[in-house]
Amino acid sequence: MFPKNAWYVAATSEEIKDKPFAREVCLTNIVFYRNKEGKVIALEDFCTHRGAAMSLGYIEDGDLVCGYHGLKAGCKGKIIEMPGQDPKKIPCLGYFPVVEKYGFIWIWPGKKENADESLIPHLEWHDNPEWAYAGGVFDIKCDYRFMIDNLMDLTHEKYVHGSSIGQEEIDESPVTTEFEDGFVVTSRYMNDIEAPPFWQMCMKHNNLDPSKKVDRWQKSKFVPPGAVLIDVGVALKDKGGKDAPKEDKVRCTVVDFMTPQSETSMWYFWGMARSFKPEDNQLTQDILKGQGGIFEEDLEVLEFQQKNLEKFPNRSLISLDIDAGGKLARRVLKQMIKEED
Amino acid sequence: MFPKNAWYVAATSEEIKDKPFAREVCLTNIVFYRNKEGKVIALEDFCTHRGAAMSLGYIEDGDLVCGYHGLKAGCKGKIIEMPGQDPKKIPCLGYFPVVEKYGFIWIWPGKKENADESLIPHLEWHDNPEWAYAGGVFDIKCDYRFMIDNLMDLTHEKYVHGSSIGQEEIDESPVTTEFEDGFVVTSRYMNDIEAPPFWQMCMKHNNLDPSKKVDRWQKSKFVPPGAVLIDVGVALKDKGGKDAPKEDKVRCTVVDFMTPQSETSMWYFWGMARSFKPEDNQLTQDILKGQGGIFEEDLEVLEFQQKNLEKFPNRSLISLDIDAGGKLARRVLKQMIKEED
Amino acid sequence: MFPKNAWYVAATSEEIKDKPFAREVCLTNIVFYRNKEGKVIALEDFCTHRGAAMSLGYIEDGDLVCGYHGLKAGCKGKIIEMPGQDPKKIPCLGYFPVVEKYGFIWIWPGKKENADESLIPHLEWHDNPEWAYAGGVFDIKCDYRFMIDNLMDLTHEKYVHGSSIGQEEIDESPVTTEFEDGFVVTSRYMNDIEAPPFWQMCMKHNNLDPSKKVDRWQKSKFVPPGAVLIDVGVALKDKGGKDAPKEDKVRCTVVDFMTPQSETSMWYFWGMARSFKPEDNQLTQDILKGQGGIFEEDLEVLEFQQKNLEKFPNRSLISLDIDAGGKLARRVLKQMIKEED
Repeated sequence: MFPKNAWYVAATSEEIKDKPFAREVCLTNIVFYRNKEGKVIALEDFCTHRGAAMSLGYIEDGDLVCGYHGLKAGCKGKIIEMPGQDPKKIPCLGYFPVVEKYGFIWIWPGKKENADESLIPHLEWHDNPEWAYAGGVFDIKCDYRFMIDNLMDLTHEKYVHGSSIGQEEIDESPVTTEFEDGFVVTSRYMNDIEAPPFWQMCMKHNNLDPSKKVDRWQKSKFVPPGAVLIDVGVALKDKGGKDAPKEDKVRCTVVDFMTPQSETSMWYFWGMARSFKPEDNQLTQDILKGQGGIFEEDLEVLEFQQKNLEKFPNRSLISLDIDAGGKLARRVLKQMIKEED
Repeated sequence: MFPKNAWYVAATSEEIKDKPFAREVCLTNIVFYRNKEGKVIALEDFCTHRGAAMSLGYIEDGDLVCGYHGLKAGCKGKIIEMPGQDPKKIPCLGYFPVVEKYGFIWIWPGKKENADESLIPHLEWHDNPEWAYAGGVFDIKCDYRFMIDNLMDLTHEKYVHGSSIGQEEIDESPVTTEFEDGFVVTSRYMNDIEAPPFWQMCMKHNNLDPSKKVDRWQKSKFVPPGAVLIDVGVALKDKGGKDAPKEDKVRCTVVDFMTPQSETSMWYFWGMARSFKPEDNQLTQDILKGQGGIFEEDLEVLEFQQKNLEKFPNRSLISLDIDAGGKLARRVLKQMIKEED
Repeated sequence: MFPKNAWYVAATSEEIKDKPFAREVCLTNIVFYRNKEGKVIALEDFCTHRGAAMSLGYIEDGDLVCGYHGLKAGCKGKIIEMPGQDPKKIPCLGYFPVVEKYGFIWIWPGKKENADESLIPHLEWHDNPEWAYAGGVFDIKCDYRFMIDNLMDLTHEKYVHGSSIGQEEIDESPVTTEFEDGFVVTSRYMNDIEAPPFWQMCMKHNNLDPSKKVDRWQKSKFVPPGAVLIDVGVALKDKGGKDAPKEDKVRCTVVDFMTPQSETSMWYFWGMARSFKPEDNQLTQDILKGQGGIFEEDLEVLEFQQKNLEKFPNRSLISLDIDAGGKLARRVLKQMIKEED
């Protein structure tokens, strides 16, 4: 249940170094590597000669060599040479449109002719000195849509992340779900409250008094098929919320890319971009560590949810108002898949 | 292949503390907890909202709260509250009749209206100062019926438990199988023999000379669907066997509750109740440790038997006289299942 | 996809000691043991009484006793005794023709009446003072035919074993495939080259100057269904290659027995027999260690190949000239299986 004609984050730029790198994306085993010019190439991890894993091979002059019998493939999977053989007679390896942008490796598992680079969502903080960013990647044994549900309804923060970003006021404040510029967006505003521990830490770093009352916001935007970008922050009370002057607020974008591995597992690229104190590397590391810890709390919940729903596949769940964001996101995905057929 | 309209031991009383406790019984994931009054509650471990595992949640004022979005369930699975929601509109969680009795948590996985507490077998030693009891629980990867077979035919003691309770005379003495008060019972009497190491230890503790000849008995009673209670002991020779005066014998009841987890795995609650020297706690601990070691010897045999029979499901086995008890027990189970349909 | 009317190596002689030994061969669980006379017996590892694993039992007076209820089986699976039972009424265990020869235990999983001991391939180095031999066994998760392919085409040496026996000249020299005395044989000759590290080490031990140019040969012979014997070596240049005088060459036979465990796993008995310096035990150990290390390099490649081909079972592979040996070997196997039906 995932669209194929779409860009997915397959890896971070740092993951693809000087060796072949294997990763399963959308039920396909893919090998990534950099060619002579440093450009990332993505081929099927399956040698057309005897089915060996190309990722067990090596790079020679920027081309990928099979480690079993020396078949050498070019960037579009064409066989360049094989000792003692006529390379033209050997079937090509599958290849995938791939783009390195914003610190990520984006892959298009579907019809190559539709792979339009301009469809990659713009990440404004990248290479922008006013922003800082750090993130990580998790391998999670659940349907990627469970994570989309999770992120489009932040009510769970109170329960799953009670000691960091959760607080009483979350489930006391209504959530609204709407289409904004064609995207599903869920928003929640909590005014005149105390900031939870994570935000107090951020306030301190931005020279704001953490004991002061704040207006807090969360705005999750689903960018299909696999991204949820969340505008979050707190501003000193009555200063304008997310539109408050820079010096009265702390504002971040929670970055989430969900990439299906199989129907029941996913790669989760998570991170946080912030537009205050971008030069403070210690703060960047503190946030990274804190966010990693918070997001690990979701793993167990989602993996057990996956097990429960696999065990009872015919059981219908209910949809409450808080689930409207996830529900709409699933409808968008369904429509994308329908259009592909 | 297990009846559902029956009481099964799901846990010991000590296992259910102040946190949710998850256990699979009869192919159903169940969460157990104690309410405000300390009464044990058993609900399906599946949140009707999004399928999360309720056992990952927590107890609040004696009620179970889902750790994902805060759904709170009452003792019969009714939704008590959920932040921002009308609880009446949320489907109930499944619940199970559950009784805490004799130090065990008994569950009825079948039709609730048939759950008659008086059907729980009476365990005379519980809360009886003339008896002492201790036991444990194992998770075994085999059909629960293999353990019933095992316990209804103690011939295996000579082979599996040769160094503790096994002895030559076991397979030299005939076993009889009969219905007694409606229960399948297998008995074996070995007279004028030397006591094996385990019983010599017990004799010493009860001031009997362990080198003296004894009359030994074993009487296994199958209490469907999942219990085998075994009256075992040795008496000084010619003193009347199991009916000998108290001072001339050592007598125990081996307690075995087999609870299906799935078709190919089970929970094994095992223990020993004794009616001599009940106040001797050191003896209780020694017997517990010894029995645990002896019963672990069965695990490997039964788990390999399971693997063999899974690999060759169509292979017919033979039934000897020593298997008559297990065979009759299976017939009783089959009849119970038939009556349920 | 394996013939059953054939001898397979099931174990080495040293593996079968004084205890029952379990091993799966051709999808059947088998228990091996030695009787009173030290002769190896092979029975099905499945007690006909209750399906217990016979290999969990013990040997008594050279006969195998089931560790569950004491059934004792004779060398052809006939039940000799069972306490309190008439052994004639208990069905026999399955047994297999088995021969101990050349330091291996050979088993015939198919029709017993066809098990002709003279069909076991002759291993000339065994008990021959002019030869030395050492080897080991690996459990590999791949179809046994992948290893046959691997050994009938040694082109992979350059890629998989680059630091020991691989060298540039391998894939520059053509391979020929032919039938020789009814066996599929692939040969490669590399003349006037430098010896690779492994062969230099052997030359030194045989008092040859390792810096001298050599003629190298590799001749793989497929002995169906599960053996590949490879005549390998180097001779000083222009001395006659493999037919050079003894003092001018180092010559070995690489010994490979592939025994199917299941359709997707195999036992790999590998070793090296050499006809120079047979009395040098240190050399024997050095070669054993070196070969073990080299052959371990194949494991990862073959197990990933298995995974890839299981994931894409309908994908057709190509067959190049270097694959002709493996292809012919598969044709021979197919024919054997066809004749069995």
